[in-house]
Amino acid sequence: MRNDDYSLVDIPSIEAEDTMSTRDATKLAAQASKATQRPFRKVLMMRHGEPLDAAFPGWTRLALLGDKYRPYDLNMPLNIPIRSLVAHIDDAPLSEMGRLTAQMVGRGLRLARLEPTMIISAPELRCVHTAAALIKSLNNKNKAATICIEPGLADWRQWQETPPLWLSPRQLADLGLPVDVQYEPHWSVSSLQSAESVADYGERVAAALHNVFQLTRTRDSGVVLIVGHGATVSSDRMSTVTELELADASVPYCSVRGWHLSDDSSTLMATLDHPIKPIHTSAFTIDS
Amino acid sequence: MRNDDYSLVDIPSIEAEDTMSTRDATKLAAQASKATQRPFRKVLMMRHGEPLDAAFPGWTRLALLGDKYRPYDLNMPLNIPIRSLVAHIDDAPLSEMGRLTAQMVGRGLRLARLEPTMIISAPELRCVHTAAALIKSLNNKNKAATICIEPGLADWRQWQETPPLWLSPRQLADLGLPVDVQYEPHWSVSSLQSAESVADYGERVAAALHNVFQLTRTRDSGVVLIVGHGATVSSDRMSTVTELELADASVPYCSVRGWHLSDDSSTLMATLDHPIKPIHTSAFTIDS
Repeated sequence: MRNDDYSLVDIPSIEAEDTMSTRDATKLAAQASKATQRPFRKVLMMRHGEPLDAAFPGWTRLALLGDKYRPYDLNMPLNIPIRSLVAHIDDAPLSEMGRLTAQMVGRGLRLARLEPTMIISAPELRCVHTAAALIKSLNNKNKAATICIEPGLADWRQWQETPPLWLSPRQLADLGLPVDVQYEPHWSVSSLQSAESVADYGERVAAALHNVFQLTRTRDSGVVLIVGHGATVSSDRMSTVTELELADASVPYCSVRGWHLSDDSSTLMATLDHPIKPIHTSAFTIDS
Repeated sequence: MRNDDYSLVDIPSIEAEDTMSTRDATKLAAQASKATQRPFRKVLMMRHGEPLDAAFPGWTRLALLGDKYRPYDLNMPLNIPIRSLVAHIDDAPLSEMGRLTAQMVGRGLRLARLEPTMIISAPELRCVHTAAALIKSLNNKNKAATICIEPGLADWRQWQETPPLWLSPRQLADLGLPVDVQYEPHWSVSSLQSAESVADYGERVAAALHNVFQLTRTRDSGVVLIVGHGATVSSDRMSTVTELELADASVPYCSVRGWHLSDDSSTLMATLDHPIKPIHTSAFTIDS
């Protein structure tokens, strides 16, 4: 393998400015905070970026020849981890556009002065990849941020036919991803039930989130970023598969929602309305 | 303005491999070339990337306050040149996604071993921006490539209400774009007729292209890249406005077509079928 530099580079810099909505929310929070003499913490929830299997259904049949990976589209990454075929199918990596979108969102958080100081990710590779790409756009201090992997935030397991085949934090770190191998998750992988109902799933995610919120009390974390799935970001109650599918489908890739966290870390309070700027593009449609 | 680094970075490297189609075409060309004892030259034609005004119609009303530019979407660049309002409206810059797509195409050319050694661009900012972004993905030797601005490749002027307000090669170079200020264009800006018919337009572009092909004889240029408009890339004959609109609408942003150039530089010969890999993505749709 040659050590050439295929980098996509160079976004020019600009004076970071808050968006109006963020600035107002921050002012509001600052005033409220003064009353309680404790700084407000913020919670951002983000859906992962476009995974390879969403852009290219059945991608493994064309792109994998045994261990050899051969991308057939410029939206496919040049390298993927070496894994078993079932692991690739169960737990696909991000597409190039997924990675770039996550970097754009990272830049958006930076411009909105909402750089996360604590990052929690669901265990799926598409989520960890999203968090890792986002970190690259943070400022140099926060570029040292590491990702805590929380299996309790995993997607509903009944989507999949196999038991979880996720990479462990150690394996992810060995791939060069900035993962916190010391982090002790609230839910272990083995405690996840493959037969859970949709309601059970909702309760599991809520419990995992509650645990993350409690953690913020002991850490110096002004902004907590949680990278998960559509249903993590959506605040809809779900009890049927249809409702779950709808919740997932209504949350675009890499979209971010934000809240203030109550002083006792138990409740999500006033919403951060549009915490970052949106992303609109027509680049991949044919205009007519 | 702070000198922070907002870069989107880091595409991992891989051994460059030809696509099947490119490899076959190259082999074919090499065989033919052996017979004539002269290396074949290749011509790539590329449409510019997504311009800001395509993603955000009327963007100047929201994003410009006098001289001050304030992006309101993460797909808007952080900086744009300081210009008059009519110039911005007449000659919009690329969107972020346009820039990233051009970089992906540059990487695609590199993987297909089709790095351009001579780059010609239409005079519009969206075309020059596209060529400049693409150059960033080339290997270090070709990163020194410069862009020759050819006003004869300009879009049909009757789309616009004003006379051309393009930046001159010198102004583009002053913005940091790698433009060849020595290049002497075949058509001067002043010789362009605003009242030209669609047929006149087709003839002008054909004449400008012919001149570029002749130039390749005197330059050491294995692969010539021409960045222009939909109608430049499309090989359809056009005589009505509807046909022109159709030609433009049928060519996606940043798409590339390729040909071999005949020995006397007068004719485009066997097509390079799919010179680079395509780009498919679902990242900016809501799945449902």
